[in-house]
Amino acid sequence: AETTRIAVTPGDGIGPEVVAEAVRCLETLRAKHSLAIEWTRFPWPSHAWHEEHGESMPQDALEQLQKYDAILLGALGDPGPMDDPERYLLPDSISLAPLLDMRKGFDQWVCERPARLLPGARQYLADERAKDIDMLVIRENSEGEYVSQGGRLRKGTPDEVATQMEVFTRKATDRIIRYGFEQARIRATDRVNEGRTRTFRTLDGRTCESQVCLVTKRNALRYWGDMYTEAFEDISKEYPDVATHHELVDAACMKFVQSPWAFDVVVASNLQGDILTDLAAVLSGGMGVAPSCNLNPTDPDMPSMFEPTHGSAPDIAGQGLADPTAMLFTTARMLEWLGRKDPAIAAAGKELFDAVAADLAENSGTRRGTHEIGAAICKRLSA
Amino acid sequence: AETTRIAVTPGDGIGPEVVAEAVRCLETLRAKHSLAIEWTRFPWPSHAWHEEHGESMPQDALEQLQKYDAILLGALGDPGPMDDPERYLLPDSISLAPLLDMRKGFDQWVCERPARLLPGARQYLADERAKDIDMLVIRENSEGEYVSQGGRLRKGTPDEVATQMEVFTRKATDRIIRYGFEQARIRATDRVNEGRTRTFRTLDGRTCESQVCLVTKRNALRYWGDMYTEAFEDISKEYPDVATHHELVDAACMKFVQSPWAFDVVVASNLQGDILTDLAAVLSGGMGVAPSCNLNPTDPDMPSMFEPTHGSAPDIAGQGLADPTAMLFTTARMLEWLGRKDPAIAAAGKELFDAVAADLAENSGTRRGTHEIGAAICKRLSA
Ligand SMILES: CC(C)[C@H](C(=O)O)[C@@H](O)C(=O)O
Ligand SMILES: CC(C)[C@H](C(=O)O)[C@@H](O)C(=O)O
Repeated sequence: AETTRIAVTPGDGIGPEVVAEAVRCLETLRAKHSLAIEWTRFPWPSHAWHEEHGESMPQDALEQLQKYDAILLGALGDPGPMDDPERYLLPDSISLAPLLDMRKGFDQWVCERPARLLPGARQYLADERAKDIDMLVIRENSEGEYVSQGGRLRKGTPDEVATQMEVFTRKATDRIIRYGFEQARIRATDRVNEGRTRTFRTLDGRTCESQVCLVTKRNALRYWGDMYTEAFEDISKEYPDVATHHELVDAACMKFVQSPWAFDVVVASNLQGDILTDLAAVLSGGMGVAPSCNLNPTDPDMPSMFEPTHGSAPDIAGQGLADPTAMLFTTARMLEWLGRKDPAIAAAGKELFDAVAADLAENSGTRRGTHEIGAAICKRLSA
Repeated sequence: AETTRIAVTPGDGIGPEVVAEAVRCLETLRAKHSLAIEWTRFPWPSHAWHEEHGESMPQDALEQLQKYDAILLGALGDPGPMDDPERYLLPDSISLAPLLDMRKGFDQWVCERPARLLPGARQYLADERAKDIDMLVIRENSEGEYVSQGGRLRKGTPDEVATQMEVFTRKATDRIIRYGFEQARIRATDRVNEGRTRTFRTLDGRTCESQVCLVTKRNALRYWGDMYTEAFEDISKEYPDVATHHELVDAACMKFVQSPWAFDVVVASNLQGDILTDLAAVLSGGMGVAPSCNLNPTDPDMPSMFEPTHGSAPDIAGQGLADPTAMLFTTARMLEWLGRKDPAIAAAGKELFDAVAADLAENSGTRRGTHEIGAAICKRLSA
């Protein structure tokens, strides 16, 4: 088989530390299963590169990265209080721009964040049913509120008017909704294989084994809200086996807190998805465990990008204190994704996921250093 | 003193039932304290009016309502699954439009939802510190994402492009931010009077007794994000006694779940505020208790509008099952607001709030009907 190539971009703050543990696990898995994978480490995007070169990554960064099958990113920017001058090194509109550049440049039009509350993960909700949370939030990652169109008229004066345009195309709407329905089917099949089932009701009273909930704010943002609704209705006809549901974003956020176990697949726009994926991350135990996958499922020449949801946490950087769990779950997701071409890699991804989950379940609450956690998981993998 | 006049608009579903209890409490308070208040009941906005007249309220609705000092609204529309044809009577872009019409028509540029977890209210978070939640979310209620500008190009075709414009003015930005700082000061004073204090740190290490957190998504929605940031920095200089903080909306939602007790006053745009106020409602016990206040604090000729956050719940409407607690808290907020001109009314608002809170604390968990709860609270007021 062809060798699968990964671009490793550790980034800033705790990024390099947690990425070091990810690489250690990758090495262990490669050796154990003779996997056909290799990786290359890049010093950018990063603050350091920006300091030296005046930009977070070289002009031809995307060309360089495009040669890889996936990008494994540590962390970028400064997640601290943005108005604290001591900690706020670079405005994060600059330091985090490479994220948006990669998503756009490689047309990573899906952002996926699964939310499942694993044993050992922190549970923020009081209701015991939180243990049953098992949803996949799918965010439209290529357009919408993130097109960066608009401007500032009479900038800086009391008469200023700032505009920001949201642009949605039916094409991108269709593909993300269809992707949602496909994932719903896959999840239903996976559940059956694992001997679990879930039941959802369609509007005409039939029962289904999966559900897609579309989120919009169509009562206030009517134009794209209506287009999303129509696309959803059209496409749902192709998936009579999947139940459908529509929530307004404010109600959806509320229900994420009140009864998140009722959701299966959730599809949302770029900004609303940004909010819902962050909430989903909390529901699955918080920043310490949440992976974020930026995928281009349609163009094999475009690498997908995998990053933990957490930031670069400069306050604890360099001290070996950061929890690499989210980074390792992210690495597992990446391997599973890359495994679409190579079943051995998919199996290694599953193995890594299980090892990280087992480590989490056993060590919940114990304070351990970055390397200690990484080493424990590597040991599990070698066993 | 002049008589304070209230327009009572019960609306749809459970609206009339919960409003009946509010009116009962108003009557009790008026009799007890000889309050100079009176109210008029309107059959619109409502579904029923729409069925008969083809519109949710008459053409001159705003002119009629403008003669009142406040509007007390029950509930509008159908909060059920919007794509269930059996329950989805009128698209809520139509049935809820009167809400947006009133906000715009009366320039109710502040939407306020206080979040305090009162004893007896449902606690969704596992952490015991949730008991200390005490924040005020202030939503910009007049522009931004809600200007309804945009359209659909090549509508209904695979090449469709839908646009939605967000328009923000520095004037509306300044006034909402300044309002936030003023509320922070008032809250700090109120706390001191009640013998409670809270401490927040400024960036230069000083301690303050209140804080304003500005929420934006300035790393992705740059134009108005930057304008908001600049306005916030400018105005904060006038309030050196108030600590400041800036959060991105995704992180803010996450922190609302992780550590909501750390917030004091939160200021956000129309859509982001819509989401954050709904989350704040959950944090303070959910739909059963949350009031929503649409205020015009600057123009005495414009009535403000008070509504519970909950919807019209058609599935339980007409059965005497709806909990009137949120409606009664809303009524209490209205009286406190109207009390700016008449201290006796303010005192009655406080009295109603205390009675509803006491009832909630004592009866948490008991199943009682709409009228049973209302009657118990009236009895408390008469005692
Ligand atoms: C850094 C920022 C631009 C980004 C986003 O809003 O997409 C982040 O919040 C995320 O979710 O990956
Ligand atoms: C009904 C709807 C238009 C409204 C809004 O989005 O403002 C509602 O969600 C609210 O918060 O009052």
